[in-house]
Amino acid sequence: MAGLGTVGGGVIRLLDANRALIERRAGRPIEIVAVSARDRSKDRGVDIARFRWVDDMTALAEGGDVDVVVELIGGSDGPALALARKTLGAGKAFVTANKAMIAHHGLALAELAETAGVALKYEAAVAGGIPVIKGLREGAAANEITRVYGILNGTCNYILTTMETDRRDFGDVLAEAQALGYAESDPSFDIDGVDAAHKLSILASLSFGSALDFKGVVATGIRHVTAADIFEAQALGFRVRLVGMAEADGDGLFQRVHPCLVPLSHPLAHVTGSLNAVVAEGNYVGRLFFQGAGAGDGPTASAVVADLIDVARGEVGPAFAMPVGSLAHPPRADSGDRIGRSFIRLTVEDRAGVLAEIAMAMRDAGVSIESFIQRGVTEDGGALIALVTHACPERCVADALERMTRSASLTGTPMLMHILDL
Amino acid sequence: MAGLGTVGGGVIRLLDANRALIERRAGRPIEIVAVSARDRSKDRGVDIARFRWVDDMTALAEGGDVDVVVELIGGSDGPALALARKTLGAGKAFVTANKAMIAHHGLALAELAETAGVALKYEAAVAGGIPVIKGLREGAAANEITRVYGILNGTCNYILTTMETDRRDFGDVLAEAQALGYAESDPSFDIDGVDAAHKLSILASLSFGSALDFKGVVATGIRHVTAADIFEAQALGFRVRLVGMAEADGDGLFQRVHPCLVPLSHPLAHVTGSLNAVVAEGNYVGRLFFQGAGAGDGPTASAVVADLIDVARGEVGPAFAMPVGSLAHPPRADSGDRIGRSFIRLTVEDRAGVLAEIAMAMRDAGVSIESFIQRGVTEDGGALIALVTHACPERCVADALERMTRSASLTGTPMLMHILDL
Repeated sequence: MAGLGTVGGGVIRLLDANRALIERRAGRPIEIVAVSARDRSKDRGVDIARFRWVDDMTALAEGGDVDVVVELIGGSDGPALALARKTLGAGKAFVTANKAMIAHHGLALAELAETAGVALKYEAAVAGGIPVIKGLREGAAANEITRVYGILNGTCNYILTTMETDRRDFGDVLAEAQALGYAESDPSFDIDGVDAAHKLSILASLSFGSALDFKGVVATGIRHVTAADIFEAQALGFRVRLVGMAEADGDGLFQRVHPCLVPLSHPLAHVTGSLNAVVAEGNYVGRLFFQGAGAGDGPTASAVVADLIDVARGEVGPAFAMPVGSLAHPPRADSGDRIGRSFIRLTVEDRAGVLAEIAMAMRDAGVSIESFIQRGVTEDGGALIALVTHACPERCVADALERMTRSASLTGTPMLMHILDL
Repeated sequence: MAGLGTVGGGVIRLLDANRALIERRAGRPIEIVAVSARDRSKDRGVDIARFRWVDDMTALAEGGDVDVVVELIGGSDGPALALARKTLGAGKAFVTANKAMIAHHGLALAELAETAGVALKYEAAVAGGIPVIKGLREGAAANEITRVYGILNGTCNYILTTMETDRRDFGDVLAEAQALGYAESDPSFDIDGVDAAHKLSILASLSFGSALDFKGVVATGIRHVTAADIFEAQALGFRVRLVGMAEADGDGLFQRVHPCLVPLSHPLAHVTGSLNAVVAEGNYVGRLFFQGAGAGDGPTASAVVADLIDVARGEVGPAFAMPVGSLAHPPRADSGDRIGRSFIRLTVEDRAGVLAEIAMAMRDAGVSIESFIQRGVTEDGGALIALVTHACPERCVADALERMTRSASLTGTPMLMHILDL
C-alpha cells in the first residue's frame, strides 16, 4: 500500500476490524505486507511497524509476496502514475482511489492491465463508498445508458444544503466548512467543479462505452450561487445542487458540471449534507439511483477493500466495462442545441421600464417565461427578478442573457442555472 | 432459456436490441440457442422460431452448445428446481429470477454450484433491475452489515402511495391496481408480504453471512392499513411503507416485513409508485441506498442479462457472498426485546373516560406517549385516536395494546405500526 493518509489509515483499520469476515467473503485472507509513504515517522494512529517499510514506492510492485498494489497517494501524475505503470507492467493487480489519475490516464493504464491480464480497479475514485463503478460496469451492463448524472462532490453539497437550511451566503458557509475540516484551505478543486468533472468523465466512459474525455467536461462551480438564488429557486419549487451530467446521443457526448435546479419530486433534491448520489438511465432498467457517503476514511476504505475482495475472488473484468480498443470516440455535443428549462436571476434598478426591457430581451431571443418573481428588496434599493423559462434551446437563453446584460438597468451579473428535468 | 412469459420476452428483446453493446461489454456474443416453455404455439410477440425448441425443460442442461441456463418459470419447487439441479450438476452456470426458489433452496443450489465451480446468479430475484445483490455481495463486501431493509414489493408501494396521494381506501385502490394489471387477481402473495419476505431472507443472508432463514421472517401485509392510518401518520410527520427489515446483532437474526412509519427525512419516504429501494448499513461505508424499478419486463431482463454478462466475463463468485460452509446459523431474535417507537391508531366510543382508559393502559404497560391526536369524526360517531409512543421495548407496546383491547370502548381492531428510525 502506497500512501498512509486518512484513507490509508482507514484501509488498515478496516482490514483489522473486519478481518475474519473479509476472509470468509474473499475466500482467503487479505493482508498488507508492505507500505510506503513520504514520512515514515509520522504518527498515524495505526500500527504500521508490523508492515515492511519501503522507501521507494515503485519498489512495492517488485515484492515477491505482493499480489496487488493499493495506491492512495493522489495526484494525476508523478509517483502515483509511476507506481501504477510499474505494478501493471509487472503483471500485478492495481487498486486506486485516485480520480485525477484515472480521469487523465485511465485508458493507458487499462491497456496495460489488459495486456497483463490483471485487474485495474478504482471504485473509491467516484462517489466514495457507493459501489457505482461496479453498478455501471456490471450491474447496468445490459443497458444502453443514455444519461448519467449526480451529486459527485460532498463539499459542494454540504455548502449548498447548509446555505439552503440556514439561509446563509456562500462565503460564510465555506469559511465554516474550512474551519470544520469539510473543505480544503484551497477549496478551488472542489468548489470550481474540477473534482466533480474528474468523476463525471469516468462515469461517462463507463456508461456510454466511450473513451475518457475529461477535457470535454464544461465545469462551472458554486462560487457565484447566492443565498437569494437558493431562496428563489425554492419559491419556484426547486433545490439547487451541483450536478455533474453526461449524455450520449446522436449529437455526440455532452458532459457538464454546473449548479442546477432540481425539482422537489426528483430524488437528487433529497440528497443533503455531504452525501453523494448517482443516477443512471438505461434503455431497459429505467432510472437507477445510488446514494451514500461520498468521502471520508470509512466509506473510501470500504470501496478500496471491495476492490481487493474482487481481486481476491479472481474477478478481473474490463476496467472501463469493455476493452479499451472497443471504446467509441464520439464528438463533443454543442450545449447550444440542448433543449431545457433555465432559471435566471437578475438584480436591476427599481424604475419604470426595466421589466419591459427584460421581457423584450426574452421575446427577441425567442424565450418564453414559465414563472416569474419580482421582489423590491435588494440591499441597494434595487429589485431582484427570478424567472424560469419554458423549455427552449440553450443558445436562445444565452442570447437572451446577452441582450439583458446590454441594459444599463442591470446592477449585477445575472445568474443562469439550468433545470434538471425528470 | 426456460420460461417465455413477460420476463422471458423481455430478455429476448433486450438481447436483440443491445446485441452489439453487450458483445463489447461481455467480450463475446451472448446468444440464446434453445428455449423451452409450456406452450410452444402461444404468440409472445417475439420471434422464437429461430431458437431450438426443447419440450423437456431439463434437457436444456444437456445441450452441448449451452453454457448457461436461464430459468424464468417461477415456483419454488417443481420444474424450476429440477432444472436448477440438473444444470448445476452438469457443471453449467445457472441464472434465475426466481425469488421463491432461491429463498427456499438457495443454499442447496449454491453448494451444487460450488462443487461444480460454476456461477449461480439471481440478481433479478430481488428488487428487479436494481443491482442490489451485486451491491451487497461485492460492493459492500468489506463491511460488517448490521441492518438491511427496504421497499421490496412494488405492488404494495403502488397501493400505499396511491392511498396516500388520492386519500382512498385499500380495497378501492387494490381493485383499480388489479384492473390495470399492477396487481394479480389473487394478490395475497404481494399484499400479505410473502413476496417481500422471500426477498428479505435473501438480502439478510447476503448481508450478514448467515444461512437463509425464510421461515424466520415475520410477515404482516398491508390489508389492514386504512386511509385514516396514512392520513394520521402524515399529520405526525411520517409516511406509511411496507418495509422488509433484517437486523443482526448479539441477540441473533431479526427479520420482519411490516407496514411501517417512515420519517419524511428518510430516503424511503420519497420512494413512490411501484419503485423499490434497499438500504444497507455497514460499519465502514455507512448507509448505502439503492433505488429503481422493482419489477416489469425491462428492468427484470436488465438484471438477468447483467448476470449473463458476469458469466461471460468469467466471474463466478460465491452465490451468497461466501461459501455455504462459512455461513453462520444465528438464532432468531425476539421482537419483544426490540426498542423503538410505535404508532397506534384506535377507534373508540366518544364518551367520558375513554381517554383515561387508554392513558392508563399505556401507563400500566410502561409506555409513554410522544404525540397524540384525537378526532371526533368517524362515520359511526366515534372518535379516532392516533398516537406515537416514545422508544420502548416492543413487548411493552404489545402489552399496552392487549390492555386497551380489554376496554369495552374500542369500536374496532387497533392498528399498530412500528416506526423506522434513522
